[in-house]
Amino acid sequence: MLDFYYAPDTCALASHIALEDADADFRLHRIDFGKGEQRSPDYLAVNPKGRVPALVTERGILTETPAMLAYVAQSYPAAGLAPLDDPFAFAQLQAFNSYLCSTLHVAHAHRMRGHRWVDEPEAIAAMQRKVPEAVGACWAYIEEQAFAGPFVMGAHYTVADPYLFTLAQWMEGDGVDPSHFPKLSAHRDMMGQRPTVQKALRAEQA
Amino acid sequence: MLDFYYAPDTCALASHIALEDADADFRLHRIDFGKGEQRSPDYLAVNPKGRVPALVTERGILTETPAMLAYVAQSYPAAGLAPLDDPFAFAQLQAFNSYLCSTLHVAHAHRMRGHRWVDEPEAIAAMQRKVPEAVGACWAYIEEQAFAGPFVMGAHYTVADPYLFTLAQWMEGDGVDPSHFPKLSAHRDMMGQRPTVQKALRAEQA
Repeated sequence: MLDFYYAPDTCALASHIALEDADADFRLHRIDFGKGEQRSPDYLAVNPKGRVPALVTERGILTETPAMLAYVAQSYPAAGLAPLDDPFAFAQLQAFNSYLCSTLHVAHAHRMRGHRWVDEPEAIAAMQRKVPEAVGACWAYIEEQAFAGPFVMGAHYTVADPYLFTLAQWMEGDGVDPSHFPKLSAHRDMMGQRPTVQKALRAEQA
Repeated sequence: MLDFYYAPDTCALASHIALEDADADFRLHRIDFGKGEQRSPDYLAVNPKGRVPALVTERGILTETPAMLAYVAQSYPAAGLAPLDDPFAFAQLQAFNSYLCSTLHVAHAHRMRGHRWVDEPEAIAAMQRKVPEAVGACWAYIEEQAFAGPFVMGAHYTVADPYLFTLAQWMEGDGVDPSHFPKLSAHRDMMGQRPTVQKALRAEQA
């Protein structure tokens, strides 16, 4: 039995969907950012980084979305969530996920988490002003260069798909117009109809 | 034969060392950031992101350091650069690399690449002022929580070690005092004595 820690409207949704895709046996634990639970002693004992997601296994805790997605794919090979026997294709999948984590998610984080990198309110406001441009450039790169279609990697669904879907939820809030990205919009619509995605969303919104 | 594109003093060093560790057959191509070669049409045809590293294989191009490190480990299993048959241990290794990529490297990038996230010179200066604190917090987390020792993952060398070594080169420039991190300083010293590290450094500085 796994224990999965998440907060609504965060990147944790990606791993949550992947766990559903894998039909994994897991318990769901909500961390309330509004109450600062991510900084509570109880949660810091689970994840010293004070962030979500965190996945507690019999062997220990895992963090970081790209690592967790690869772990789910490798631990439940029957679900076919990654090209596990092809190092090049697996690396392409991981490169996509790494870009989401270190470039797109980071550009997005300058809207709400600017305090990580500056102290002055004026500088935080300056960051927020550039979010639509910086995040929009990431989406343009994905639409034009990195997205094979209909799934991220082409014909086969992989753990990159719930990750892309999760970050695509933030487009409008970041001031990015989804209609500029027709392939990504079609992907978001298709993903939203998948039963595992709907199950994970219902559980997070319950 | 692989073609590896790098620039000196960048995170490309990590994959460069890993290719040496794997005894891979590769050609080294230097991209001169001072001349803006990363934005030249020739290089953008290799890597549309205009960044390093990039690894051109017979199957296509790979980018993103964590993906490239896992690719080298999986493609040259005899080199023993990752726990390939243990999804949990592999995920721990990947979680470490993902943290370096998306948190430590990002905190560092606010010193020299602030234009990615703000336009105003005052806001760029505000970012630069916070770099020692933000980067220092990452190093403290690694020293205290994430580093097993003597290697990143414990007794065995993995691709996380050249990645950690590479980012540790930036400590002083980021205003972080290495003497506050004795375990990481010992790792840096040990890594600097490895023949593959010395060979990669010589090649990049030639």
